[in-house]
Order: sequence, then C-alpha cells, then structure tokens
Amino acid sequence: MREGAVSAQEYMDACLARVREVDGQVQAWAFLDPDHARAQARAADEYRLSGQAIGPLHGVPVGIKDIIDTGDMPTENGSVLHAGRTPSRDAAVVTLLRAAGAVIMGKTVTTEFATRSPGKTRNPHNPEHTPGGSSSGSAAAVGAGMVPLALGSQTTGSTIRPASFCGVWGFKPTHGLIPRPGMFMLSRTCDHVGLFARTVEDLALLAEPLVAFDERDLDTRPRARIPFVEVVGEEPPLPPMFAFVKTPQWRHAADDTKAAFAELVEKLGDRVEEVELFPSASEAWTWHQIISEAEMAVNLELEWEKGRDRLSEHLRARIERGRGVRALDYLRALSRLRPVYGTFREIFEQRYDAILTPAAPGTAPKGLASTGEPVFSTLWTLCGMPAVSVPLMQGENGLPLGVQLVGPRDGDARLLRTARWLVGRVAK
Amino acid sequence: MREGAVSAQEYMDACLARVREVDGQVQAWAFLDPDHARAQARAADEYRLSGQAIGPLHGVPVGIKDIIDTGDMPTENGSVLHAGRTPSRDAAVVTLLRAAGAVIMGKTVTTEFATRSPGKTRNPHNPEHTPGGSSSGSAAAVGAGMVPLALGSQTTGSTIRPASFCGVWGFKPTHGLIPRPGMFMLSRTCDHVGLFARTVEDLALLAEPLVAFDERDLDTRPRARIPFVEVVGEEPPLPPMFAFVKTPQWRHAADDTKAAFAELVEKLGDRVEEVELFPSASEAWTWHQIISEAEMAVNLELEWEKGRDRLSEHLRARIERGRGVRALDYLRALSRLRPVYGTFREIFEQRYDAILTPAAPGTAPKGLASTGEPVFSTLWTLCGMPAVSVPLMQGENGLPLGVQLVGPRDGDARLLRTARWLVGRVAK
Repeated sequence: MREGAVSAQEYMDACLARVREVDGQVQAWAFLDPDHARAQARAADEYRLSGQAIGPLHGVPVGIKDIIDTGDMPTENGSVLHAGRTPSRDAAVVTLLRAAGAVIMGKTVTTEFATRSPGKTRNPHNPEHTPGGSSSGSAAAVGAGMVPLALGSQTTGSTIRPASFCGVWGFKPTHGLIPRPGMFMLSRTCDHVGLFARTVEDLALLAEPLVAFDERDLDTRPRARIPFVEVVGEEPPLPPMFAFVKTPQWRHAADDTKAAFAELVEKLGDRVEEVELFPSASEAWTWHQIISEAEMAVNLELEWEKGRDRLSEHLRARIERGRGVRALDYLRALSRLRPVYGTFREIFEQRYDAILTPAAPGTAPKGLASTGEPVFSTLWTLCGMPAVSVPLMQGENGLPLGVQLVGPRDGDARLLRTARWLVGRVAK
Repeated sequence: MREGAVSAQEYMDACLARVREVDGQVQAWAFLDPDHARAQARAADEYRLSGQAIGPLHGVPVGIKDIIDTGDMPTENGSVLHAGRTPSRDAAVVTLLRAAGAVIMGKTVTTEFATRSPGKTRNPHNPEHTPGGSSSGSAAAVGAGMVPLALGSQTTGSTIRPASFCGVWGFKPTHGLIPRPGMFMLSRTCDHVGLFARTVEDLALLAEPLVAFDERDLDTRPRARIPFVEVVGEEPPLPPMFAFVKTPQWRHAADDTKAAFAELVEKLGDRVEEVELFPSASEAWTWHQIISEAEMAVNLELEWEKGRDRLSEHLRARIERGRGVRALDYLRALSRLRPVYGTFREIFEQRYDAILTPAAPGTAPKGLASTGEPVFSTLWTLCGMPAVSVPLMQGENGLPLGVQLVGPRDGDARLLRTARWLVGRVAK
C-alpha cells in the first residue's frame, strides 16, 4: 500500500466484500458503515497522491472494540444502558491511529462493559463455538479476514483468550505503555489496550504508533520511541530461553492442551525448562479479584445507581462484591503485588527470555453462553507484564489453540521478536 | 563555608554549643552523638582541602526527622514499638544529602509515627507551648538555631504548622518531587518530605539536591533539574498576584490571625484579591480523612497486629476507622480528587501566582498535650500542591505566626521566589 500497488480503496473493498461474505454468520461488528469506511479509504488515497508524507499505517483498516470512543461512530460499551451513545471525541488510541494514517473501519462487538456477558459474535472457525471475550468482535473480525488489524482491551484475559480461540495473534503490552483515555475504564490497575493481527510483523506495525505518554493516564510516562518493527525483524542475538510455567491453574488445562504443550516442550529441547512459580504467585488470582472488582464498583457506580436492573446478573454480582471490599484488603493486595514485580524481573534477568504458558485452558468452548476462562492470563495482567498469544497449535477438534509468551515489563518489542523466533523454530 | 572562611568543624562546634545551651529546655533531638557529628564535619573539611569538587551543601549540618532512615543512627519513628530500631541503609533523601556534601547532624523528635501523639519537644520561643508537629524536633531545632537546615514530613500539616509555630521557613514541595523511600510511610497519597530553614535562600539550597526520580517511589518521575537557587535569587518579571483564600476552615482562625491577615491584605493592596473556593473543595477534608486513614491502616498493619496496646489511643482510633473504610469510598474519594487538580490549575493559570492563607489557626497553643490543628494545610497536602510557611507575623502573645503561600503543582521554585518577594514587600 505504501508503494501504491494496492490502494486503500481496493483494500477496503476487499475487506467489505469479506464482511458481506462471512459476517452474517460471524457477527463481529457492533457498528460498520461501509460508505463511511470507503470515504475514509478514498481520503487516504487522495492524501497519498498529494505527495505528502504518510504514516506507517496509511490506508490500513483497523477495527476498534466498542468500548473505545470514536468521535464519528457510536460507542455503546456492550450495554443497553449506553445504547445510542455517541462520544464527542476519539479515544487517545484512535487519535494515534488516525495520525498514523489508519482507516477506522468500524466498531467491533464487546461483551457487556468488557466483562463476561457475551455479545452476538461467533467463532469464525466454527459458529457453534464462542470467539472468546471480551474483545470478541476484534478477534473474530481479524480471524475471519474481515480486517487486518484490530484493537481490544484486557482486564483479565480479554485479548489473549479470544486471540487464542480465533487463531490470530493477540498482544497485551506492558501496563501503561499504551494510553487508555477514552476507553471505558473498569480497573486502572488491570486495564490494558489489546492488539490483534494476523502476523507478528503486523502486530509490531500496529503497536509502534500506539506507544505514547498521555497526562490523563497516570500509568503512562514519557519514554523513547520503541522500534517494534525493527526489533521484530531482527534475529535474537542468542536463541531464546523459555521458562515453561504451568501456573497453579494447570488443573484447568484440557488434555489436548497438556499434550500439545508436552510436544512443544520436547521440540524446544534445551531451549526450555519447566519453572515453578514462587508460592505467593498463587495468591495473585485472589488479589486480582479484590483489586479489579473494587475498582469496577467505583467505575460502574453510575450504571449501578441508575440502571442496575439492566446489568447482567453476573456483572451485578461482581459489582456487589466489589462494593463490599474493604480498603484495607484492596490496599493490602496492591502492596503485596509490588514485590512480585521484582521477583519476576529476577526470573527474566537471570535466565529466561520469555515465559511459555497456555493462552487458555483449551480451544474455544462450544456454545455462546460463556466466553471461556481467563485463568491463564490473570497473573500476567495483574503484574502488567507483556503477553502475546501465538496461533501455533490446534486442539483435537481442529480449533486453534494459542501459545502464550510472557515477557518482563517494558520488554515488549523483544517479546514479539522471541515470539517470531518461536514460530520459525516450531515450523522447522 | 564554600570558600573556607568557616570550616565545617567550626560550624558544627557552634551548632553543638547552641545545643548544649538550649536543648535541655527545647529537647529537639531524638538522637545526637556530638562525636559522630564532629567526625563527619572533620571528614568534610578534609575532603574540601583535598581539592576535590564539593557539593552545594558541603559541610552544612542537617537535622533529620526520626521517621527518615539513617544507616549510621537509630530511627525509632516516635514509637516504643520501634525503640532501638537501627536501619541498615539511608533513606533516599539522606543519600541525596550526603551526596551534596551535607553533614547529618542527628535525628529530630517526631510525634508517634508522624501522627498526633506528641514527643518531648517544646517550642523554642516559649517552653510552655507546643512546637507543633509532627515534625516537632526539626522545626524547633532550626527555630532555636541548633541547626540551619532540617528535614521533616507532611501528611496533613506536619511541616507547615510547626514551621509557623517555631518561626522558621517550612516548605512542602509538590507531591512526588522528592523521593520518599526509607521514610516511614503513612499514606502514599498524602505523604511528602518537608523542609525547614531560617531563610528562603537556605530553603532553596536544601531543596535543589533533593529533587530526584526514584523507581521505588511510584509518585516520582524523571524530570529536569529545578534551579531553585537561581530562581529564588531572581526578581519576579511582574509583581505577583495573590489569591487570599480563607478556606472553609476560617472559623477556626484565632482573632489575632484574622486581624493580622486583614492587615497583610491591606498592605498588599491591588496585588491581592479574596477568592472563594469552588464548592467541592469543602469536601476535601473528608476525602483526606478517608484516603489517609485507609492507607495508614495498611501501612501500620504490622504495628496494629503486634502491638496495638502500645499505640496511643488516638492512633488506635484512627487505624480502627481506617480499617473500616470501604474500597468504594476510598477509590471514590481518589477519583473526586483528580478534577480538583484541574480546577486549581485554572485558578493559577488565569490570574494568581500564589494562594495566600494562614499556616495554622493561630500561634502555638499553650501546653504540650496537643500539637495544634493542621486544618489549614489539609487541602493543599491532599492535592499535592507546593506550600511554604513564611515567618512573617506575630500573634498577640508575641509568638510567631506563619503566612502560608500555596502554588500550582510543579511550580515549586517560583513559589519560593514569590515568597521572597512577599517578604520584601511587607518589610517596606
């Protein structure tokens, strides 16, 4: 596209054709106006022809999870309470995408307020299975080839799990790397912007312009540009070393997941070692629940006050639990968390380039009532560590199964490079 | 001293002579070993004579509040529970002071865990009156001429109030400007390092080397050096404009305080306007209590578990209240706070260089049972705004009465420059 071999309009037309072909079944979009998408693509082509400098995503369509504000499209946060909501301005990440030249194709389906209650989307590989959630539409749209790139979010496992289920790359960068203003906030401590793409190179292309300091997001900070694209293109100076971590959730892993990992570990030979986490890591699932539910209770307070009868039963229960949390327990969980950061840092500094662990307990469960379990993401999300789901395996049912790699905080670009190395190694 | 006109040893000897003269009555020191102090001064002189580059505080004695860790002296946090505690390393600020050449003279008396229950210190201007607290010893030691500079802390009004009562300059910089690791933590949101000196120029000299990023203190961030000394030495480009703010606490102000402020406002003429705060500001006192007590409950949890019977009744009651705070109320208070920052920023951007308000309701109360009321500091502390107590007035009883100036966050050096201007203007 940069060279003009394919115009933005041709590319968009191909995407829209694919939407017409498969979205009747997949239902990945919460809002998609083909004319508006085409008009943006046309404007991108005209801009390029004018000879002005173009951004790294010039003319590339991106799907945006419907909890991320767009000034030109509705943003309904997956709730009837916000039906018809039309924000007056773009979220920080949408502004960054537009500045990089991207075309905001449409809004993708989210579960209710990015929590558990599912939307209409189905798994592109088998419509009887869930696409995962909460970034259901983003993962499914990329998985079905309707759009090459999409944004989602992750507060527990909302990017890694649907990426695994839909057979695409999913990336949850370090906490605070990508600014969140304009994205519906559930939990300052746990919320992250998530990224979806079909290749790791595309993931790098999408990530690079999104790293920014935003003074409205207290967890971002000024930092040097991270050369994602360049780093991902490099060979690692040494073959990476992996720590295979089963986590205290291993009992939840399906038999075919366990078998697939045994095979992968064997294939990696001396490049992988099984590592058992320090004891306090097993408390992280409780800490995550305390912290995220306490923060959700405040962030959903208005919805609770004005329309709790129109929240799902599941979400009502979580808010109710969150409202009952003592500040003492909340702050204690936060304070216990901090030393864990240091312990993980040591694991990486001493020996390992990435932790290797399942992206989900297994392939996408059958049925649409549940989006599956996020338990294999909770710990890394809580600790703000970068994680990527690599579409590398299949379950016995032929559905995709992701390998999750987790890196040290701020080791995002190297983590993607390691992931690319892994794909090459396993393909051998 | 820089030129060698006075050696560090001569200066220290003069300080120690003053200690012998007045400290029997004032009792500002929790720990002071004259031999150790002299040995440090001697080492400073030897270092200077060796011709090596010297720091901005070379050979200058500094008193350190006894909640700030020193690797070479005990740090007992004002509690029998920590009696005999000897930290293995210096607090971040002590490291910075030593790097700037300062001599750590000794540890100054703090109230119990920097809260309300008083230590042994008396007001240097009248031993029947409180020196204020919680940085009682630091304020009194500087006020009595036993040391030129001292560090304290402020979680509500623990620097500004004792500075006012003891007739010295007290400075509470912007939240996060000076790193806190190694200082006993009560409340991440409200804790600040506080500074004491006899002149504003000395305050600038002390502040400059203390500004630092420390990754262990999540509220600090990398920033350019702040040229405190240079800025304080400059004339303001325009005569500053003051906003006289009575705050919702004005009813607590003593009659002589009210009269002194009326006189000061008249003297400032068209350089001051009375400003009424926006309505939500009046909630800040409640928010401060919720936030600081919830955080104290966690930070004092070990003391509560192991020795609550040896805590003061007052502190036990606060911890008990803090343990009962709901995360919902804690997080709600934090979230309401954020917009207030913006409102204050506008006040300063639009018209005013500093807010002018009492440092305390009146002069130091008689008796040692109470350290006085911090109500005129609460709001600025909670909002992390820089505040300085200027020893400019006297009460009817002849005791000192401070004028508090408050500036916008990160406007620290300019605030001190404005304070210097005020002193010159009032002296005319």
